[in-house]
Amino acid sequence: MDAADTALAEKLAEAAGAAIRPFFRARFTLETKPDDSPVTQADRASEAAMRAILNAERPGDGIIGEEYGIERGDAQRVWVLDPIDGTRAFIAGRPLFGTLIALMEAGTPVLGVIDQPIAGDRWLGAKGQPTTLNGRPAHGRRCASVARAHLATTGPYLFDELDLPRFEALRRAARDTLWGGDCHNYGLVASGHLDLVCESWLKLYDFAALVPIVEGAGGRMSDWHGRPLGADSDGRVLAAGDPALIDEAVAILAGA
Amino acid sequence: MDAADTALAEKLAEAAGAAIRPFFRARFTLETKPDDSPVTQADRASEAAMRAILNAERPGDGIIGEEYGIERGDAQRVWVLDPIDGTRAFIAGRPLFGTLIALMEAGTPVLGVIDQPIAGDRWLGAKGQPTTLNGRPAHGRRCASVARAHLATTGPYLFDELDLPRFEALRRAARDTLWGGDCHNYGLVASGHLDLVCESWLKLYDFAALVPIVEGAGGRMSDWHGRPLGADSDGRVLAAGDPALIDEAVAILAGA
Repeated sequence: MDAADTALAEKLAEAAGAAIRPFFRARFTLETKPDDSPVTQADRASEAAMRAILNAERPGDGIIGEEYGIERGDAQRVWVLDPIDGTRAFIAGRPLFGTLIALMEAGTPVLGVIDQPIAGDRWLGAKGQPTTLNGRPAHGRRCASVARAHLATTGPYLFDELDLPRFEALRRAARDTLWGGDCHNYGLVASGHLDLVCESWLKLYDFAALVPIVEGAGGRMSDWHGRPLGADSDGRVLAAGDPALIDEAVAILAGA
Repeated sequence: MDAADTALAEKLAEAAGAAIRPFFRARFTLETKPDDSPVTQADRASEAAMRAILNAERPGDGIIGEEYGIERGDAQRVWVLDPIDGTRAFIAGRPLFGTLIALMEAGTPVLGVIDQPIAGDRWLGAKGQPTTLNGRPAHGRRCASVARAHLATTGPYLFDELDLPRFEALRRAARDTLWGGDCHNYGLVASGHLDLVCESWLKLYDFAALVPIVEGAGGRMSDWHGRPLGADSDGRVLAAGDPALIDEAVAILAGA
């Protein structure tokens, strides 16, 4: 991963935003996927625009995308794309969805972008470099304990019946909880406006981009056992602006 | 209510936005009010800016505001102000909070503004006139039944233990539910991107501005019994882009 990759990730974000904006608060066809999640022409146009650039500029790299699947998935370098994370927010005209772009090297996310093309928020994280929001350094904030933490999660029914009571224990322990937000919440952790995000059922394309962003801002991401996130994670995700919060959150989720 | 009132409402929104923007994603003091809700310098600066204009330009009109209480509350015309609806979103750096401005005449909301000063969304509703978003006409969309409705609400724990199962019945009946959003959701109903909003514990300053906006877009607002909203409402609120949805939602909430 080098500066050319970072520039390419920003070019992908530009292309995705250009593909999405004409559909925002406009007419589009809404379909429901087999897993009951919604998808629109905008999701597909955004991913197709990014794939066209990658296939032209990085023909040897792999691609994993939410809408169009896997190309060269066993390559050493793989781009992981979620063209619209937060499709429910997008279809409601809410400027909080995001395009997620990650580069993984040997299974580890080393570069990530969260791009919100309507509000104009772009977080960029690259391993070994400070995370930025629209080019300016972003930093997670210190938070002494979960009891003082502002927690966010997208929705209560995104947890299954085993995970919901575990999340509920964390929610009751936290100072306050903000609902909705999808990937945008992780950017707000990286910028020091939220302390903790807890979610489940995330796919690789939902979380790969978030890891370099949160960790490059001084925070930490893990699964619900405190383990680093990777291609074999189970989809349960924690993000904290203060890395010390993770161990306490893991203990609360475990019922300790 | 006349064109001068509409122009004044927009001037109030400008002043509120100018007072709020310097605090967005910046440092501010966060306090907790007796009801456990958060308040910031930005809430107070926004309301103070609006009150200064009203006291200079409409010295005979009353004012009811979330942060500074009631002045001339028995006047025939009363301005109702919520300087930042969605303070939790504001403090998290999420561009979805809003300034709410209503004019009530003889107890009825006749003019309303939802202003989101970061994303740049301003809905304006005035009795007898079509609602606008940033100056362009806004229309609620048709929706044949709750089963096809996209529902939104700010958070599951804003319902008490009696209301939560009633809301849950509505949520299960709806096609999909979007969380978070505060007043912005009602603007999205007026613009035809959401079908239904259901909330409780709203104060007069939380809902007065919404009524002319949703109804001027062809929609309908009511309490959970289908009654019009007014100063004596109990805080349980429904909004629908298609007015026919309200009766079905009322029946579901009643356990029918």
